[in-house]
Amino acid sequence: MTPAGRTVSAPGRGLPDGECADRCARAQALMAAAGLDLVLLTTEPEIRYFSGFLTPFWQSPTRPWFLLLPASGSPVAVIPRIGAVAMAATWVSDIRTWTSPRPQDEGVTLLAGTVRELAGPAPVLGVSQGPESHLRLPLADWNRLLAALPGAALRDATPILRQLRMVKSPAEIEKIAHVCDLVSAVFEGMPAWLRPGMTDIEVFRRFRIACLEAGADDVPYLVGGAGPGGYGDIISPPQGRPLAPGDVLVLDTGATFDGYFCDFDRNFALASADDAARRAYRLLHEATEAGFAAARPGNTSADLFAAMQAVLGGADGDVGRMGHGLGMQLTEWPSHTAEDDTVLEPGMVITLEPSLDLAPGRMMVHEENLVIEASGARWLTRRAPPELPVIG
Amino acid sequence: MTPAGRTVSAPGRGLPDGECADRCARAQALMAAAGLDLVLLTTEPEIRYFSGFLTPFWQSPTRPWFLLLPASGSPVAVIPRIGAVAMAATWVSDIRTWTSPRPQDEGVTLLAGTVRELAGPAPVLGVSQGPESHLRLPLADWNRLLAALPGAALRDATPILRQLRMVKSPAEIEKIAHVCDLVSAVFEGMPAWLRPGMTDIEVFRRFRIACLEAGADDVPYLVGGAGPGGYGDIISPPQGRPLAPGDVLVLDTGATFDGYFCDFDRNFALASADDAARRAYRLLHEATEAGFAAARPGNTSADLFAAMQAVLGGADGDVGRMGHGLGMQLTEWPSHTAEDDTVLEPGMVITLEPSLDLAPGRMMVHEENLVIEASGARWLTRRAPPELPVIG
Repeated sequence: MTPAGRTVSAPGRGLPDGECADRCARAQALMAAAGLDLVLLTTEPEIRYFSGFLTPFWQSPTRPWFLLLPASGSPVAVIPRIGAVAMAATWVSDIRTWTSPRPQDEGVTLLAGTVRELAGPAPVLGVSQGPESHLRLPLADWNRLLAALPGAALRDATPILRQLRMVKSPAEIEKIAHVCDLVSAVFEGMPAWLRPGMTDIEVFRRFRIACLEAGADDVPYLVGGAGPGGYGDIISPPQGRPLAPGDVLVLDTGATFDGYFCDFDRNFALASADDAARRAYRLLHEATEAGFAAARPGNTSADLFAAMQAVLGGADGDVGRMGHGLGMQLTEWPSHTAEDDTVLEPGMVITLEPSLDLAPGRMMVHEENLVIEASGARWLTRRAPPELPVIG
Repeated sequence: MTPAGRTVSAPGRGLPDGECADRCARAQALMAAAGLDLVLLTTEPEIRYFSGFLTPFWQSPTRPWFLLLPASGSPVAVIPRIGAVAMAATWVSDIRTWTSPRPQDEGVTLLAGTVRELAGPAPVLGVSQGPESHLRLPLADWNRLLAALPGAALRDATPILRQLRMVKSPAEIEKIAHVCDLVSAVFEGMPAWLRPGMTDIEVFRRFRIACLEAGADDVPYLVGGAGPGGYGDIISPPQGRPLAPGDVLVLDTGATFDGYFCDFDRNFALASADDAARRAYRLLHEATEAGFAAARPGNTSADLFAAMQAVLGGADGDVGRMGHGLGMQLTEWPSHTAEDDTVLEPGMVITLEPSLDLAPGRMMVHEENLVIEASGARWLTRRAPPELPVIG
């Protein structure tokens, strides 16, 4: 059976013993250097990174969850009671709970008391404030927390979290590589079933099922577009439109394995392709090669952008960047733009995502995933064919 | 073919003409009563509610998105350029964009200028601050926005959004009813394939595929547990453990159709069931019936809680509530707790979710979905069988 056959070669679930503890120790070294007494974490990837706590329950907005990272020692979870059993299955042993929902005091008093216990009445408190972050609790509760901690001085914890999370461990890379590989196989199998006349809704459905059968845990992100010789945007769900001969179809997906994402796309022409579409595809493929060649330690995201931009010759589209980091989230720091001077390091997992406008309302995007290693880059996706595939 | 056959009976996608405009007009009446000049929206459900903008792109944390609801007239979108084409496909016509990512000014200057243009230098500005809300932008950018609007007075917009969103339109109810119905059929089909010896990972995979084949767009939420006579928690992903005879398995799912969720579960005993598990199941089924009987206009969430609690006799579990609202999100206001005095109205879609502890580390949960109508409640899920099903 396909799923079972595939699953045999899947990497183990969870993280090696000690990996979360090691992440905490490295964060604590950075906290000490930055003068932080305590870091308060509120979002799914931040809390999972240090605890290993993996659940889709975050989709319920009702309850906030907190993890406190003290200057030394183990993290402390301050969470709704419904999460106590699942959190106790992680390495986190100090778990404080409240009965939730309780909107009149949704963990705020318990959290403030725990902050004071761990770091005294006047802590230098790190919270995420910078790019790509948010606080996952109601603003009124945040203000109540600050009022309950009048001696606290707030600092931005984003630089610390960004620096740590951008460089993936071998276990993280193995999970991302696995989902990249299995979704690559699904894309390679599409010519066997993709046909003009199918609606985009049907294509999306079949693609999701194929990813699950191949061993993906879920396909949280799937967007696409199709139109004559190109498509108008790449962030919309399917509309029910039948694919027509001459259409170019793109599917861009973030499938997951054990909480880690791939994020790449494939383009297909239906029945025929015009010269402009073939040229655009070839150019994007070449731009991706140029990005790959530049993807080595010491170069920056801006260098990747420049390498891809040079191939495209200024025809790039409205996506705003040519790739980004990848991991527990579909997109993570850095962004490959002219301004992002993030230095590439071994262990970083990134996408290369050049795009270009063929005509008003007609664009094309190509995306691959890779990992930076000491000697250069290694593809995690199986490279797309160099010429636009024509199907059916 | 199953998917196509099912899709024939699916409701149309999107919303009827004028539904988003009507939502805005009703919000504006409430804004006037509350003295708000402008409401700033930052999260997916808030922005979708007034614009109809549906995309999974929200999974990328890189870019904030904003919708401004003025005191009169149409909403104004202030969004990253990558979203311009997709937003233009909604009824929103005033769309301001910036090239993003641009962390040094991630839309803040554009947003502040638009606020001043729409409501002057000293607006009474509503933003979500209350239960179940958060602001989806970095705290540093939020502080920059406030600094750029020194004359603004902040008010909590949560009561307005809560009041509107809790009562669903016929089109919304039709979408939720559709996904409830098709997932009910998937649960009813499980005895044909569920067997002891399958791992929970395999069960989850098959269940997701069955939901997609039946016509669900996606299965963003799937949790479950299995153990001898009950399970230890209900928010964890599968662990790879094979199902054993005597296990009780629960699957709790939030599948979607056109951006609307179901949220319900089903319990199954594998090969045999002990008396305690059978009794617990029967009690939860009876509690759900009692909740259903109490689910009529004029009663409150607290009345539903009391009706279910009376059947369970104080044996309820650590979930913290016995159901909640449902719609664009897996869980929405209200919460069925002893303290929630939300008055039920026709059009509200809710879950009933009694749970109980059988023994330490051994619980059971049951959940159904229904809509409040003038004469009482109507099931949206096909009612679970009254006795614990034993399979295999």
